[in-house]
Amino acid sequence: MYRSHNNSELNKENIGQEVTLSGWIQKTRDKGFMIWADLRDRYGITQLIFDEDRTSKEIMATAKSLGREFVVTIKGKVIAREAVNKNIATGDIEILVSSIEIINESKTPPFTIEDNTDGGEDIRMKYRYLDIRRQEVREKLIFRHKVSLEVRKYLSGEEFIEVETPYLIKSTPEGARDFVVPSRMNSGEFYALPQSPQTFKQLLMIGGMDKYFQIVKCFRDEDLRADRQPEFTQIDCEMAFVEQEDILNIFENLTKYLFKTVNNIELQEFPRITYDYAMETYGNDKPDIRFDMKFGELNDLAQNKGFQVFDDQELVVGIAVPGCSEYSRKQTDKLIKWVKRPQVGASGLIWVKCLEDGTYKSSVDKFFDADALASWAERVNAKKGDLILVMSGDTRKVRPQMSALRMEMAETLGLRDPKVFAPLWVVDFPLLEWDDDSNRYHAMHHPFTSPKQEDLQYIESDPGRIKANAYDLVLNGNEIGGGSIRIHKKELQNQMLSLLGFSQEQAVEQFGFLMDAFQYGAPPHGGIAFGLDRLVAIMYGQENIKDFIAFPKNNSGRDVMINAPSAIDDAQLDELSLKVDIKKEEA
Amino acid sequence: MYRSHNNSELNKENIGQEVTLSGWIQKTRDKGFMIWADLRDRYGITQLIFDEDRTSKEIMATAKSLGREFVVTIKGKVIAREAVNKNIATGDIEILVSSIEIINESKTPPFTIEDNTDGGEDIRMKYRYLDIRRQEVREKLIFRHKVSLEVRKYLSGEEFIEVETPYLIKSTPEGARDFVVPSRMNSGEFYALPQSPQTFKQLLMIGGMDKYFQIVKCFRDEDLRADRQPEFTQIDCEMAFVEQEDILNIFENLTKYLFKTVNNIELQEFPRITYDYAMETYGNDKPDIRFDMKFGELNDLAQNKGFQVFDDQELVVGIAVPGCSEYSRKQTDKLIKWVKRPQVGASGLIWVKCLEDGTYKSSVDKFFDADALASWAERVNAKKGDLILVMSGDTRKVRPQMSALRMEMAETLGLRDPKVFAPLWVVDFPLLEWDDDSNRYHAMHHPFTSPKQEDLQYIESDPGRIKANAYDLVLNGNEIGGGSIRIHKKELQNQMLSLLGFSQEQAVEQFGFLMDAFQYGAPPHGGIAFGLDRLVAIMYGQENIKDFIAFPKNNSGRDVMINAPSAIDDAQLDELSLKVDIKKEEA
Repeated sequence: MYRSHNNSELNKENIGQEVTLSGWIQKTRDKGFMIWADLRDRYGITQLIFDEDRTSKEIMATAKSLGREFVVTIKGKVIAREAVNKNIATGDIEILVSSIEIINESKTPPFTIEDNTDGGEDIRMKYRYLDIRRQEVREKLIFRHKVSLEVRKYLSGEEFIEVETPYLIKSTPEGARDFVVPSRMNSGEFYALPQSPQTFKQLLMIGGMDKYFQIVKCFRDEDLRADRQPEFTQIDCEMAFVEQEDILNIFENLTKYLFKTVNNIELQEFPRITYDYAMETYGNDKPDIRFDMKFGELNDLAQNKGFQVFDDQELVVGIAVPGCSEYSRKQTDKLIKWVKRPQVGASGLIWVKCLEDGTYKSSVDKFFDADALASWAERVNAKKGDLILVMSGDTRKVRPQMSALRMEMAETLGLRDPKVFAPLWVVDFPLLEWDDDSNRYHAMHHPFTSPKQEDLQYIESDPGRIKANAYDLVLNGNEIGGGSIRIHKKELQNQMLSLLGFSQEQAVEQFGFLMDAFQYGAPPHGGIAFGLDRLVAIMYGQENIKDFIAFPKNNSGRDVMINAPSAIDDAQLDELSLKVDIKKEEA
Repeated sequence: MYRSHNNSELNKENIGQEVTLSGWIQKTRDKGFMIWADLRDRYGITQLIFDEDRTSKEIMATAKSLGREFVVTIKGKVIAREAVNKNIATGDIEILVSSIEIINESKTPPFTIEDNTDGGEDIRMKYRYLDIRRQEVREKLIFRHKVSLEVRKYLSGEEFIEVETPYLIKSTPEGARDFVVPSRMNSGEFYALPQSPQTFKQLLMIGGMDKYFQIVKCFRDEDLRADRQPEFTQIDCEMAFVEQEDILNIFENLTKYLFKTVNNIELQEFPRITYDYAMETYGNDKPDIRFDMKFGELNDLAQNKGFQVFDDQELVVGIAVPGCSEYSRKQTDKLIKWVKRPQVGASGLIWVKCLEDGTYKSSVDKFFDADALASWAERVNAKKGDLILVMSGDTRKVRPQMSALRMEMAETLGLRDPKVFAPLWVVDFPLLEWDDDSNRYHAMHHPFTSPKQEDLQYIESDPGRIKANAYDLVLNGNEIGGGSIRIHKKELQNQMLSLLGFSQEQAVEQFGFLMDAFQYGAPPHGGIAFGLDRLVAIMYGQENIKDFIAFPKNNSGRDVMINAPSAIDDAQLDELSLKVDIKKEEA
């Protein structure tokens, strides 16, 4: 037997008991005649004591030989501790060791196994198994487990059925790039790994499963940015015989349930705003509403007043930054420099200080008098003491620029507290977005999203105007879920695919099975998918998802611990009827 | 709103209420002046009534137009039913329809949506979404969901953490054939899909997670037999600081819990037998112990008695088939023919009838007298009225032959009741098995299995003799789980890999990360994996796993519904630096 207790269980009530413990040596303190060692496992730390007077020579010698991360099993007696440690559960006791076995030795780890480790990301990923020994990382994985389990409990309680959909499916060029899997039994043919179980969950609705969910891995072969993984996890859901309202309600309740059970936080009713409102008000379809600074459009107030910078622009827009009216010249210059950085790309920034005495001071005093500036202040809801920041330009460009500035100011002012949670629904997304490169419309969500009934009239004349029954759940400036009511009629699905540039032949080749299915009594249905990696990170109060994934890939898609991907045998390639053919410019 | 209730909810207490229901038209009965329709959803069936006197002409006309599998939403009043139907939850009521909307029409389905469908497997798989509408299939998927959820609840309650391990990993030639995934970002390199998360769960133990589980898809590119799928689901588990006994206990308790909560069956303590005992007694390492018919070895009783068929053989073995002493010549001849079929491959079969009057009649009466036959009967535990069947030959061949006969007799006698459950543990598996083809040892479980401490002495001299700390959970003649205590020392792992024919270079290339990890304080650990597909099928009382998988592949690894795998674009191949190269003999 390796243990009678784990390393967080023993306390005053166990004093006098003989126990067996196992774990890792976190650290030792050797005073010569007395040695203490911290024994660690997943659950906690228990202090061991070895003492010349009470411990045999042999065991003293073993104790002296212990290095960091040695694995040991000890037997001993629980005794009261002289110097109580209030920080740990076992802080009242220690174990007077009567026997010790070194189960496995350890080389000196390449970084310290402490919350504040000295290891950089590269080395931590190479030795991820040591990284996971750090309480901080382990707690994040345990937190993820809790969230997943509560999702399953909640949805199962609401009569959702978790159905496993296949991983070896069919490649479809629409959307992101697929990972493909060559088939040995079907030479020259390939499976694809799912980017999502979208079509399968729709088929389950057509199959009468009524309410489906799955916590499922999805795959996208995209060039990786920080915080994007080639494999990621979704909470994937679908319901039949529902309207948008039903879906928003049930998944708002799921989210509230998760925050209540896992974080012990009661969330209030989630605001619902339209995509158009979000773009006008926050310049962004995933606004962070932990703070205000709503956009005010100033065209009518600020144009044609002799200030040419504004006059020819499509949009003049401002925000009121709270409490910054005392910004120095240096500070406002810094902001102007910040917005001109290539990452933001603005051409400039106008400021107006709303001073405490009710007067205004601005970088455009030559062109606008106090009354004009007061009207701006009213429009952007600026109060005395605020700093108004104004940009102008093409709507499509200036909104994201102002949004970036708004986020930057919030960050500077400490308004993005990761322990404050501000969820909202963004609804009424456009069905399509125009893509100049391919000179055609793309589906904003995916080709299965249902247009709004009242906008169907524009499908031929002005498709860009059509809104969809599509919605996102946004939390603290991150999209954590998105979904839609789906098309359930064959004709409309056909029309949609043709709008997206599919020939009839391509439509049949790729989605024929779905359109066939629509002919056999498809019910109205819709759903949503949450990004579990991000949801968990945000619930924990962080934005970096990597530590919430046990074995993440780096930005080149590599697992540096196991060294994957790697070359495979020629025999394997032969069996798959494949040849590697690296073009010279790449090689 | 599509529904106020589902189709199993309404009963006497709802009489008089106005309700809205949606679902599929299961069938209609049209008496001209009166029409009944069964409205179906996942939850049940509700009867709709349309009646000339009480229903408008327009709605009557719509009702007459309803075809099977049309999707409708109706409003109406709950009324008492004249002819009560005790078979369904809503059998006391029906709905007098006051409005009806046809949401989607349906072509005539290619097979009937009934428990006893007229569709064969091929057509059901092509239209799997219609197949899933059949209550029988749907119930199996819901049953699977329940089992999965209870596994998660139980293990989470025991402090196991579900950790998602990666799907894009590294190809290793040991074991079955990998599915591989070409990497675009790393030209010429490949990921592999996991055959199991084996090394990752061991790394999690080294990482201090202590108790891990995961319900996870695994992949094997093997030639498919009936009931084997290229992707399948495992309940994968691992624990640190445990011995075999700890693992058997916790997973026996899990199994008991599942049967209790899902099947409402209390299982008794599981018998534990060794691999050697299983082979001697049942000729099989996954014995079906719902019935007896244990093997009796007869060498000492039956050899050198003048019957040459037995004399030179390695093994003479018999079983007592209960209550078959009255078998006719025709019946015993049929058995002899059966064992000689190529699928069994025996050279013959001797029978002894233990008659009710205490005498014996046998096919070898010339060679063996009553005393001799009585000694056989005692050895095989035959009682009056039983039929003893005896075979002889090479042990390696005759045991599986006799095992096949034992199963066949049990089947014939109705002793394999799928609603009776007889679990057991088989322990002490051999570590290695010799493979004549490759002229080397193979790992019986996998290369990470720990040899028994007391057998380590044979590792150089007689490796085939070493037993492992390996165990299988067997249920009704099926292996539903298997696992082992793992090696946790680098030296032993090295020795093991070299025994399995790995060069030092190959060992480092493929498992270097694991052996590195062993150097940093690896704890003792072990685990088990259950095949979820099979476990669920057996718990449900079936052996065919396909209906417990929502979208299974056929025996050529194809999904005939979506038509995968399929050819991909040249552009996709180019991006992956691959060329399809089909050899002429295959093309």
